[in-house]
Amino acid sequence: MQAYLDNSATTVCEPGVVEKVVQMMSVAFGNPSAMHNKGVEAENYVKEAKEIIAKTMKVQEKEILFTSGGTESNNMAIMGCAAANHRMGKHLITTRIEHPSVGNVMKHMEEEGYEVTYLPVDENGIVKLDKLQEALRPDTMLVSVMYVNNEIGAVQPIEEISKIVKANNKATLFHVDAIQAYGKYRIFPKKMGIDLLSVSGHKIHGPKGVGFLYCDAKVKIKPIIFGGGQQKDLRSGTENVPGIVGLAEAAKEIYTDFEAKIEHLYEVKAHFVEEISKLEDVKVNGLTGKDSAPHVVSVSFPGVRSEVLLHSLEEREVYASAGSACSSNKPAVSATLKAINVPKEHLDSTLRFSFSVHTTKEEIDYCIEVLKELLPMLRKYARH
Amino acid sequence: MQAYLDNSATTVCEPGVVEKVVQMMSVAFGNPSAMHNKGVEAENYVKEAKEIIAKTMKVQEKEILFTSGGTESNNMAIMGCAAANHRMGKHLITTRIEHPSVGNVMKHMEEEGYEVTYLPVDENGIVKLDKLQEALRPDTMLVSVMYVNNEIGAVQPIEEISKIVKANNKATLFHVDAIQAYGKYRIFPKKMGIDLLSVSGHKIHGPKGVGFLYCDAKVKIKPIIFGGGQQKDLRSGTENVPGIVGLAEAAKEIYTDFEAKIEHLYEVKAHFVEEISKLEDVKVNGLTGKDSAPHVVSVSFPGVRSEVLLHSLEEREVYASAGSACSSNKPAVSATLKAINVPKEHLDSTLRFSFSVHTTKEEIDYCIEVLKELLPMLRKYARH
Repeated sequence: MQAYLDNSATTVCEPGVVEKVVQMMSVAFGNPSAMHNKGVEAENYVKEAKEIIAKTMKVQEKEILFTSGGTESNNMAIMGCAAANHRMGKHLITTRIEHPSVGNVMKHMEEEGYEVTYLPVDENGIVKLDKLQEALRPDTMLVSVMYVNNEIGAVQPIEEISKIVKANNKATLFHVDAIQAYGKYRIFPKKMGIDLLSVSGHKIHGPKGVGFLYCDAKVKIKPIIFGGGQQKDLRSGTENVPGIVGLAEAAKEIYTDFEAKIEHLYEVKAHFVEEISKLEDVKVNGLTGKDSAPHVVSVSFPGVRSEVLLHSLEEREVYASAGSACSSNKPAVSATLKAINVPKEHLDSTLRFSFSVHTTKEEIDYCIEVLKELLPMLRKYARH
Repeated sequence: MQAYLDNSATTVCEPGVVEKVVQMMSVAFGNPSAMHNKGVEAENYVKEAKEIIAKTMKVQEKEILFTSGGTESNNMAIMGCAAANHRMGKHLITTRIEHPSVGNVMKHMEEEGYEVTYLPVDENGIVKLDKLQEALRPDTMLVSVMYVNNEIGAVQPIEEISKIVKANNKATLFHVDAIQAYGKYRIFPKKMGIDLLSVSGHKIHGPKGVGFLYCDAKVKIKPIIFGGGQQKDLRSGTENVPGIVGLAEAAKEIYTDFEAKIEHLYEVKAHFVEEISKLEDVKVNGLTGKDSAPHVVSVSFPGVRSEVLLHSLEEREVYASAGSACSSNKPAVSATLKAINVPKEHLDSTLRFSFSVHTTKEEIDYCIEVLKELLPMLRKYARH
């Protein structure tokens, strides 16, 4: 038995996605910038991919910009908007629990002379709206808040946040890192007041190395990569046609029978939370109901080092993650866990379990069974 | 019959490359940053890819940095070095015939307060070395020269250029855009005095959306994309494992039986040049012997608009390119053709034909046959 419960780190590609990628690599391999029909064919596939993705969010095709992944999308949203709108002001707002692809861009912006406010969150990882209200200034150029936190699955009140931001200043841009949210929620940027939204392919059973940035047509943005002027001069470089078409296929598939898929995810999660809570001395962090993301659970195992538990689990083919595995594999103390006041002694004893639409109750049962065996053993060992 | 003669725009993926990509998408799909063995497996594939690529150039693995393609490699080389070395000086040198992924970065650098010298080239597109000598200053931070020009196949005297640059100031960095050269030449950066070198996957029968930057271990460089700290914090974002492994496979394949492949390319090119020169009123631009790249020929067809000829050719399944097709499909006057003094009336009558290791003499013969039919017809039509 195997239980891959690290789907927030990355997911396996759907067979339909692989098929599309192969087709684009082998048959429709043209350069979309070529003027002959091999180029036009490739260009049409890119256009169709845009249509498919735009449709999932009820936005315009021209508002979809393909990138090399979620990290580039987040970088472009912040740096590209800063380059185009710095006259509006040099104040940025974000939260203390962002992914490093937002957090470290913010640090870079500070070096570039911007001022950044990092909003605190409550014990469930939800942004404190009164603090947002206080932080907003006339010179706030952009607010960036993640939709779903990658470590604990906290879901931010995106629409409310947008309302508060826009009430202060309609011109302030609102960027949402939706890398853990797209494919788990129906996201309608126009309705929700989102100006920019970042998505990654490989978190939704699509290819690695591709993502997109939704950028409202009215938002002024500049490129962060310069060259041949592809994608209306906003993102140069030959389009990654196989990746783009594969990403669109993944988006199409994930939003097909969507409600049933999410229902399944919540069932799997509820089952996991129920079963793991029966184990001795474990602590589930953050919310676990439908007020939390359907696919992420953070669990502290006091008295066991997370790295030890992770490796013991992998020997039994149960795959989980210590903190956030989307950042490089240097172990570092999680800013998110600290921000939600996980006790210091639990910080290094916390694992993330994350599910996909393919995760089964049997896999959960197997994981729990393995944990039941391992935990007493590891704790005994740790005490000696 | 079909003749795809637009291989400088993009190439079809080798079956072995497709196979590797599929394997990485379906089986070894882990996130290289994950600490469990699914992550380690993916990490090892990335490491192996680095070894394969490093070996083709006799450099160290740690000197290979994966990017989203040639454009990002060129951007990173220039902007990343500028961020790390601006104290050395704010003068940059490049040529008038660079690809826009260098040329437009240079324009961006000018906006950022850098001074850029654009070197002229002779009538064959070769950089004037005396002009380089004159241009070098104590504050020249970086020199960027493409190895093979994408429009006319001109090959620069890279080693000589490096010697001149380093004789002026050992600390001045030398970047080479080798996107049209890697896989066509054996490139040894250490021997040739190259500090940074850009390569793209899809020009060598590898995947789109992936490339690499060779960066000598002693070069100081900063990231241009920030986030989870992957690739030693130099290029954040989950590694595009399928793309990376596919790129390494393409590199391995292209450098296998390499001399025979290049010999074949030169034979195909010589045949093409010989046959096309027999046609009435055509002019081959630049050099065509072994002093030029084995895969690119630029031909002017006075009296015929290139776009008209291109579309007439595509109707007969002959695919060529008007000017450079690696930039977006807005037709613009080619800076390269202007720089080599192609007469004004030929600028809009020039096509690029570019070959791959799979191009056959039969395809060339077919192309020539079609041109023989089309040219008199199109010229007659143009005169009326």
